[in-house]
Amino acid sequence: MNDDVDFSGQLCLWYRGEVVVDIAAGALSLDSLTGVFSVSKALSALVIARLVDSGQLTLDARVSMYWPEFAASEKEAITVRQLLAHQAGLVAIDGVVALDLFLDCSVGGAALARQFPLWRPGTAFGYHGLTIGVLMEELVRRITGQYLQEIYERDIRSPRGVDAYLGLPPGLDARYVPTDDAILSSTQPGDTLRRPPLDGVTTSVFGNLDCGMTNATDSAFTNNVRTRRVGPAAFGGVASARGLAALYADALESSPTPVASANTLARMAQQHSWGTDRVLHATRAYGLVYMLPHPEMAFGSPYAFGHDGAGGALVFADPRSQISFAYIPHPMQFPGGVDARAIVLAQLAQQCAA
Amino acid sequence: MNDDVDFSGQLCLWYRGEVVVDIAAGALSLDSLTGVFSVSKALSALVIARLVDSGQLTLDARVSMYWPEFAASEKEAITVRQLLAHQAGLVAIDGVVALDLFLDCSVGGAALARQFPLWRPGTAFGYHGLTIGVLMEELVRRITGQYLQEIYERDIRSPRGVDAYLGLPPGLDARYVPTDDAILSSTQPGDTLRRPPLDGVTTSVFGNLDCGMTNATDSAFTNNVRTRRVGPAAFGGVASARGLAALYADALESSPTPVASANTLARMAQQHSWGTDRVLHATRAYGLVYMLPHPEMAFGSPYAFGHDGAGGALVFADPRSQISFAYIPHPMQFPGGVDARAIVLAQLAQQCAA
Amino acid sequence: MNDDVDFSGQLCLWYRGEVVVDIAAGALSLDSLTGVFSVSKALSALVIARLVDSGQLTLDARVSMYWPEFAASEKEAITVRQLLAHQAGLVAIDGVVALDLFLDCSVGGAALARQFPLWRPGTAFGYHGLTIGVLMEELVRRITGQYLQEIYERDIRSPRGVDAYLGLPPGLDARYVPTDDAILSSTQPGDTLRRPPLDGVTTSVFGNLDCGMTNATDSAFTNNVRTRRVGPAAFGGVASARGLAALYADALESSPTPVASANTLARMAQQHSWGTDRVLHATRAYGLVYMLPHPEMAFGSPYAFGHDGAGGALVFADPRSQISFAYIPHPMQFPGGVDARAIVLAQLAQQCAA
Repeated sequence: MNDDVDFSGQLCLWYRGEVVVDIAAGALSLDSLTGVFSVSKALSALVIARLVDSGQLTLDARVSMYWPEFAASEKEAITVRQLLAHQAGLVAIDGVVALDLFLDCSVGGAALARQFPLWRPGTAFGYHGLTIGVLMEELVRRITGQYLQEIYERDIRSPRGVDAYLGLPPGLDARYVPTDDAILSSTQPGDTLRRPPLDGVTTSVFGNLDCGMTNATDSAFTNNVRTRRVGPAAFGGVASARGLAALYADALESSPTPVASANTLARMAQQHSWGTDRVLHATRAYGLVYMLPHPEMAFGSPYAFGHDGAGGALVFADPRSQISFAYIPHPMQFPGGVDARAIVLAQLAQQCAA
Repeated sequence: MNDDVDFSGQLCLWYRGEVVVDIAAGALSLDSLTGVFSVSKALSALVIARLVDSGQLTLDARVSMYWPEFAASEKEAITVRQLLAHQAGLVAIDGVVALDLFLDCSVGGAALARQFPLWRPGTAFGYHGLTIGVLMEELVRRITGQYLQEIYERDIRSPRGVDAYLGLPPGLDARYVPTDDAILSSTQPGDTLRRPPLDGVTTSVFGNLDCGMTNATDSAFTNNVRTRRVGPAAFGGVASARGLAALYADALESSPTPVASANTLARMAQQHSWGTDRVLHATRAYGLVYMLPHPEMAFGSPYAFGHDGAGGALVFADPRSQISFAYIPHPMQFPGGVDARAIVLAQLAQQCAA
Repeated sequence: MNDDVDFSGQLCLWYRGEVVVDIAAGALSLDSLTGVFSVSKALSALVIARLVDSGQLTLDARVSMYWPEFAASEKEAITVRQLLAHQAGLVAIDGVVALDLFLDCSVGGAALARQFPLWRPGTAFGYHGLTIGVLMEELVRRITGQYLQEIYERDIRSPRGVDAYLGLPPGLDARYVPTDDAILSSTQPGDTLRRPPLDGVTTSVFGNLDCGMTNATDSAFTNNVRTRRVGPAAFGGVASARGLAALYADALESSPTPVASANTLARMAQQHSWGTDRVLHATRAYGLVYMLPHPEMAFGSPYAFGHDGAGGALVFADPRSQISFAYIPHPMQFPGGVDARAIVLAQLAQQCAA
């Protein structure tokens, strides 16, 4: 571990059930934990997958079947499939958008249930960078009576003992390496924020939410202990690459302890939204919750599934090549989202596997 | 007023119910009226909004419910929503396309009712630059027994006394400043005409229609007195920026005399079509009738709605910033449609309001 | 005929029922036959059109109505229309992809019936370069009990005596000029293969299929006598430009011996898929089976329909201009698909007709 370098990172790679790469450099050691922003969605997606497996959640059902208030503002016909494929048009929330909306899904869920969609649901897709977390959380809560984070911790993370948290316990704060959120306060911040200036969607999506403060109390992200403890499903994850790769090794059918059925994961990895993302104004491919490879983000076969995060982190599993890959750079890379290094590393990993 | 300048224009801006900018320069005085081409669609849209408000028009109903002949040529399932969102594929008319088709909607409507759509309805969208006017007019006529222009004049324009006409009375011809249609006769004309050469759609959309003649008798547009008197819903409007801004100030909920309900206007301002327009071959966002902002035409918040016109005019209301904006340049700017100046002016207005 | 030139080709043009251009140069004489790759789809499409005409095939029916096994892997709701518009997501086949899958549609059809779609059917489109052939063949076989190639030969080709074969008889091998498949073995091969490197779809679509061998035994294409005899519907056609143009002259309503009704062909020529093709990652427009003109491939009016092929060949009919056009260059042009020369020639033909 060395703080003097310009670039730090963790990289962990599994191939056919074995760890084949596990390295760290610079400010991050192998055991360091840090905020992984939207990579969190790949943790949350596994809770969804298990509800599908158990028959508690039906992808083609209407959201309002599980969550009656969601039918307001002409949203009664939106299906779970549309919701999870970033097609519902609920990217912005009217009124004051404060962090509390994202720390308790009963609060944020109520706001989203009232919300009139920005676009006619089903006619298009765009990254629900912040809101898809609340939507998943409230859907899970309505179905199970439990918080997504509780289920994740009890049924997924804890049995595996992996370093990939939605809600970091206080006892692990010592291993937490703060993210460099400063970059998020620039005019062209990263990940979910990345889009041309003067596009009205930016302001609407983030409202009054403070996305840029590095101040530990005010930040919306995991440097803020409130966020870190809760672990919002869209952006509140704290992990190491080692933890992420171990978790996603269990997203492959060959795992002796699969986290969900290969059938369900393949259905969630199926392309549902592809083309120009109307929030990010860039090419994206989404399955259900998952971010998928496409020519401008070619990290794997068409069967690979995972998620990137502001800061440049990336996790995915690829059933074709049988690899599980996790990468976390530090500090986060401008302009956020999966960075060129992550893609190159993923492609090298794919070539080694082939 | 000064005819010696290269550039003339009118600009009028309302903020929270008050006029805050009202200027004119060059060949246009504050009281000048001129042809606003597709900005006319923003006038016509208000008639549609009122029919929705009164319950006479249901957006999710099939067009053929109101207009049985429209069901011909596999169009029975097209909804009003698809029709108004430029998704119906009725951009071209087979056979001779003459001005008469656009001066009497019973004539043009009969042709469009027979027409087989260029694309499978609902699979895509493209600017129905000329035909959406006839389609709105005939829909209104079938529902109400009256012409769209009559309703507009009686219920919308006249009570407000605003200078924004669909059908200019002879007594106001003295205030009419001719548009410079010459530019429309070039090989790359403006607005609805703007698209790459050799694309077969161009010829099909316009057929034999003479779009380029500056001759007052032959032009399809408002320099032709026949067109000016009728005021075709898609392109026949005559207005001043002052008139347009006053009208659209009444499209904001805060107005004491709203032209339609905020709820209906928000539904018409919801994005329905977004991405590459298959007629214009450029990025566009449409609600129902309305042209909406997008990153390459960033005139307002995602809640703003209005329309541009060949020649570079632009009108919109923005419920977020509470402004109403209207701009008319003269002569029209190549290649037509909202010009860079209009966007810059709109952005300045938005910044002042914020 | 002259083998010393760099470029060879055939060009044949019909206008209003008469041959107006019929030339050949270089290695191709007027009577030469060669492999036309995906232009084959334009031959196969005519069999589909005749089944629609006869009422044996309904475009809005589900594929599984005719082919029950196709309902597997969540494909029960896919319509014939979606299948033929490249929207079904069946671009890749899991497992070993060998030539035999394409030489007998009962084998390839069984694999495609099992296949889980790469994307959610109906949400997008992408060129089914190889598989649309098997899908058409098996659909035809289920409906008629006969092979598409048999019907094509008996009902379409033979009565006209045209040089456009799906399955070349041994007696005509002497006229066959081998294609230069070597170009297909490069890293950026042509036509269906054309897309950015490292995009996982490439590998998946082609699997183990040997597309590049010039060895007459191993090639997947018509230099391989096995392929040439069968004439796979997607890529196995052998023809001359003279034969293709004569055939497509009968795809115009004005023909005294039309190959199918103008009504059906217009419905198949209607745009169903338009925009960025998610397999080719380039702009494309498709009707049902047919490739259609768009601004980057502007070969005709919006009513024109036909197909290009790896190697640069192109055939189309244009009901607007009443021309039938066929062009075959030799050797094939990198990177395949319709080449710039074909478009320029088509545009010249259109101008002469106008």
